[in-house]
Amino acid sequence: MKPGLRVALLGCGVVGTEVVRLLNEQAADLAARVGTPLELAGIAVRRPERVREGVDRSLLTTDAQALVTRDDVDIVIEVIGGIEPARTLMLEAMKSGKSVITANKALLAEDGATLFAAAREYGADLYYEASVAGAIPLLRPLRESLVGDHVNRVLGIVNGTTNYILDQMDTNGAGFNEALEEAQALGYAEADPTADVEGFDAAAKAAILAQLAFHTPVTAANVHREGITEVSAADVAGAQGMDCVVKLLAICERVPSKDGRNGRGVSVRVYPAMIPRSHPLASVREAYNAVFVEAESAGSLMFYGAGAGGAPTASAVLGDLVAVARNVAGGTPGPVEVTYAKLPVLPMGETVTRYYIQLDVADEAGVLATVAEEFARHDVSIQAVRQVGMGEEAQLVVVTHRAPDAALSATVEGLRGLEIVREVASVMRVEGDV
Amino acid sequence: MKPGLRVALLGCGVVGTEVVRLLNEQAADLAARVGTPLELAGIAVRRPERVREGVDRSLLTTDAQALVTRDDVDIVIEVIGGIEPARTLMLEAMKSGKSVITANKALLAEDGATLFAAAREYGADLYYEASVAGAIPLLRPLRESLVGDHVNRVLGIVNGTTNYILDQMDTNGAGFNEALEEAQALGYAEADPTADVEGFDAAAKAAILAQLAFHTPVTAANVHREGITEVSAADVAGAQGMDCVVKLLAICERVPSKDGRNGRGVSVRVYPAMIPRSHPLASVREAYNAVFVEAESAGSLMFYGAGAGGAPTASAVLGDLVAVARNVAGGTPGPVEVTYAKLPVLPMGETVTRYYIQLDVADEAGVLATVAEEFARHDVSIQAVRQVGMGEEAQLVVVTHRAPDAALSATVEGLRGLEIVREVASVMRVEGDV
Repeated sequence: MKPGLRVALLGCGVVGTEVVRLLNEQAADLAARVGTPLELAGIAVRRPERVREGVDRSLLTTDAQALVTRDDVDIVIEVIGGIEPARTLMLEAMKSGKSVITANKALLAEDGATLFAAAREYGADLYYEASVAGAIPLLRPLRESLVGDHVNRVLGIVNGTTNYILDQMDTNGAGFNEALEEAQALGYAEADPTADVEGFDAAAKAAILAQLAFHTPVTAANVHREGITEVSAADVAGAQGMDCVVKLLAICERVPSKDGRNGRGVSVRVYPAMIPRSHPLASVREAYNAVFVEAESAGSLMFYGAGAGGAPTASAVLGDLVAVARNVAGGTPGPVEVTYAKLPVLPMGETVTRYYIQLDVADEAGVLATVAEEFARHDVSIQAVRQVGMGEEAQLVVVTHRAPDAALSATVEGLRGLEIVREVASVMRVEGDV
Repeated sequence: MKPGLRVALLGCGVVGTEVVRLLNEQAADLAARVGTPLELAGIAVRRPERVREGVDRSLLTTDAQALVTRDDVDIVIEVIGGIEPARTLMLEAMKSGKSVITANKALLAEDGATLFAAAREYGADLYYEASVAGAIPLLRPLRESLVGDHVNRVLGIVNGTTNYILDQMDTNGAGFNEALEEAQALGYAEADPTADVEGFDAAAKAAILAQLAFHTPVTAANVHREGITEVSAADVAGAQGMDCVVKLLAICERVPSKDGRNGRGVSVRVYPAMIPRSHPLASVREAYNAVFVEAESAGSLMFYGAGAGGAPTASAVLGDLVAVARNVAGGTPGPVEVTYAKLPVLPMGETVTRYYIQLDVADEAGVLATVAEEFARHDVSIQAVRQVGMGEEAQLVVVTHRAPDAALSATVEGLRGLEIVREVASVMRVEGDV
């Protein structure tokens, strides 16, 4: 057997501790699969005095900088999270010839380009399966298995917290605040839930997925983002009336041009939307994640599993570690991210979507004609319209055909200005065939 | 750019034609991803005179033997299927230093060991994503992403034909023969449906999955196999009464020993079984495939998609081709199958399962006591028993706890011999928590 490979770990919280446990427990298996043993060379932490079960204290150091450039380190695993010092440490590691594995979605979504460029420049591996959808093997299939295919669309539930909240609202008729409190009590949501419920977490993952699927640079700032804080019990009930369910979706789409299939750009967005209950994503319950991929030849694929948690994330890190270790041992780096397509990210207004709109309307003749006229004025065509309730309680439910989002949102503004519309009770985008 | 890599294709039927189409259409994309262009060097066919749209006739040859050993060929793609001449051709190719991509589940399940040994001996790549579950990236995740984890169970719907038939039976209350005829009329089932409905196809895939998941040699002959021809409308109705659905499942399980987690062996089996409607596999409709994987750290994962068809299979072949081409260009072969665990495959009788049993019983006192005694005699404990109907129509529905399959099947034999049991109307295994 060849001499062993030495691994440095940056960060030793929930995920890091699990990584250490798996490295120890599965040492024999890992050695068999890599062809050489893996050994922990050091663990950089901020507070070495903290008790970490199963972690050899002699490996701990507070000098991460020194650790990542040490001559006896071959591979660096980063599970600190956040932008700095993670970015500097990973760049230093690659510059000193180490390959890097990271679970850092925020950094990849904000400044992946710098990291990918460094990987290319220094011939280092940069693997990051754990950054999206926890243990679900998703990036590797997109990056490698579907590499001979043409991905047209990625549609995913990539945030477990919001899926748990929306699932509770759907199941129990709970309102958003009530469901959030329950999620917090059960540990599914943090005390400050902003990153989850406002869609920041999902947007970072959408950027990473779009970049991989379309070989095009996309950052979190390019992602149109709407959270779930405004989703009401009425929205969820309206979805149920359509045999739909509300999910926070991350959507990455290739937008076709009229002549070439590479398209005129990509659309990357995160928002709550209705999808039909018959869609495979509709049955994703609780805090599970799932990502639906539409490829030209492969057709529709779905990947489902736990999207977060120490053990699932550590499992993804270990999968990457085996691949990287094999590459290092063999002297050949793995595939580097390529963004050769360089498609523009289209603004939300140009993205084609469908709306579900629920209106409280006055109880008088000609209401439907006036409403229909407002849609026509914006060139939005109506797929179905239905009156619910009578008299003072009368509501109109309208589902549109596909139209540019700008036209749809202008229509909603127009409706708000109509005298016969007492209130726009619910507006929600619709994905999938209803 | 480096000089191009040359690819030989063996077989040019439905899948082969799609592979040629993708190689031509995506030439630029493929070159960008591999780092060097890929070129078709030749296509071995039996009948060159046949019309194949989009295939350059000057590439056709009937001498497959000569093609796979040609000096100007780097990679061989085998989509002929069957045992011979596919095996000899692949062995010759690897012996001459070519790497091989195959979609041949029958051969891998019968004699994968010979192929894997040749790959190791000659330092060749042997990739076979397309052999199981069409375009669903499944083998690569098992082989690579989950390689740092510990897979305990693989539970899959890996045959689209039987899933279509069972789905029709569940939806329309159709009997097996009626549903089979419809599947044949729609092209989901072949004129001779034996390989599908008797579970041979699923068993071959189960062998491949078990081998990968448990690093243990498993052939199709080791797989316990029962088809769906005996599944009746009554069985399906019985499942519905339990809020279950009947699926043909391929199950690969690590059987734990009392002390070590590597276990005393593996159980690999294919049979129709009830699973709860709440299980993610239950919602897999029509001819779709899905594979559920339970791993120690990653938790439950599911992979879903089209399991067959020319384009999906070709997509999987192309994904493998990019990986292999990258390995060949870089001079480092990919991971070779390792069967270091060498766990024994346990006989079906020792496998622990659960039964659902429906009995037509005599209308007299003491029936339940007599039936319960028969279960006790075989050490099988009952989870639930329920009487359905009255008088002449009386039926007992029994669901057992988990017990060795031999004890369960002996119990059924015993029940058949009881005077008060007029008929054992339905016997079916149960998977998942009901």
